[in-house]
Amino acid sequence: MARQERATRTRQAILVAAGEVFDEVGYEAATIAEILKRSGVTKGALYFHFPSKAELAQSVLAEQVHALPVVPRRELCLQRSLDEALLLAYLLQRDTGDAIVRGSVRLTVDQGAPRDELDRRMPMQAWEGHTLQVLEEAKAAGEVLAHVDLVRVTKVLVGGMTGVQVLSNIMTGREDMPERVADLYRHVLPAVAVPAVLAQMDFAPERAGRVYEEAVGAQDGARSGGLAPAVTG
Amino acid sequence: MARQERATRTRQAILVAAGEVFDEVGYEAATIAEILKRSGVTKGALYFHFPSKAELAQSVLAEQVHALPVVPRRELCLQRSLDEALLLAYLLQRDTGDAIVRGSVRLTVDQGAPRDELDRRMPMQAWEGHTLQVLEEAKAAGEVLAHVDLVRVTKVLVGGMTGVQVLSNIMTGREDMPERVADLYRHVLPAVAVPAVLAQMDFAPERAGRVYEEAVGAQDGARSGGLAPAVTG
Repeated sequence: MARQERATRTRQAILVAAGEVFDEVGYEAATIAEILKRSGVTKGALYFHFPSKAELAQSVLAEQVHALPVVPRRELCLQRSLDEALLLAYLLQRDTGDAIVRGSVRLTVDQGAPRDELDRRMPMQAWEGHTLQVLEEAKAAGEVLAHVDLVRVTKVLVGGMTGVQVLSNIMTGREDMPERVADLYRHVLPAVAVPAVLAQMDFAPERAGRVYEEAVGAQDGARSGGLAPAVTG
Repeated sequence: MARQERATRTRQAILVAAGEVFDEVGYEAATIAEILKRSGVTKGALYFHFPSKAELAQSVLAEQVHALPVVPRRELCLQRSLDEALLLAYLLQRDTGDAIVRGSVRLTVDQGAPRDELDRRMPMQAWEGHTLQVLEEAKAAGEVLAHVDLVRVTKVLVGGMTGVQVLSNIMTGREDMPERVADLYRHVLPAVAVPAVLAQMDFAPERAGRVYEEAVGAQDGARSGGLAPAVTG
């Protein structure tokens, strides 16, 4: 194994272990010792990649959007947006989940100590930027009603997804998250999409698992391309 | 001052101090010592009302919905639902906020240690129960479209409010929360309300402060009645 590849694998193993620990106990209670134990790397290797717990946590935050496999092209851009949201729901569930995504989401939502150094805006800005881009493509493709303010819709969808995740976690340990995501889109898109697009959408929450298989399959088929690095935890 | 009234005031002073501390540092880092210092009550009095930190936190969680002053009657039930959401946004802001509401919301959203004893479902169930009740009144008044599933709308609105709060807190320290709340309702109600009702709604985020003044005024006018105990911190 080339040195570069080994370094990438080590870094990845640390991020996955850190994701697990941050997910389980949060930022403050997480220890480097526990992350070392789970990743099986040496202390020297960890500090080579991440000089501090804060920098490690910030890297887990930065991976949140990129850790998602890319959803293959869809006829409708708004279907892609829903499918990405369902994919996120799938990756947040306990049995099927991705440790980095789960840990990163907890780091984002927990308010933390008054002066911890974590920048929680970074993943949120990434979600907002990505969502707005997909909505702009939908608009260019004629899927969006006139007079819709895409920046506001972006805020509603990213805010809605954030809350659906928190509430689903509290109420059912995220078991009903795909259904809550589908309901969010079912109730927001009538104010956004032209009727002919609405009628072609598939809002079934069961899509979540299928979208995941499809996205991971496409990723394995073309590992060098794609927007997201290959992280499927 | 009668003994009963003194006990109520002491309890209230403890809850307000606890709300402040939980809001600032979260459940785990909060100490009884700091809560004692801010409330100015004795250790004995605190433990008389709340035998443990967990029971104190659970009481702060229980106050979340009741701490809101009651919004006076509206022509439209859906306007009342929006006004209650705007009122919550107002009470979560730093300068105008209510310490108990702020602390309680943080206790709800922070995931906490794996086995802390807090029941975070309690405030969420209270929000869902209350929201569903207002939506059912709206339906009985003819404000809701046919074929709308009120339980799903409830989940979307309560989830949306939760996420709007988290995202607004991360991005702007909750400064833009009233605007995000108005946008949430602007984008969900078209799938819920009959057009004539939509056209009569006032979605202006600036309502937040006015609704607060009105609700507190009505509460002072009829302190014995009302659904919520008088908590305006």
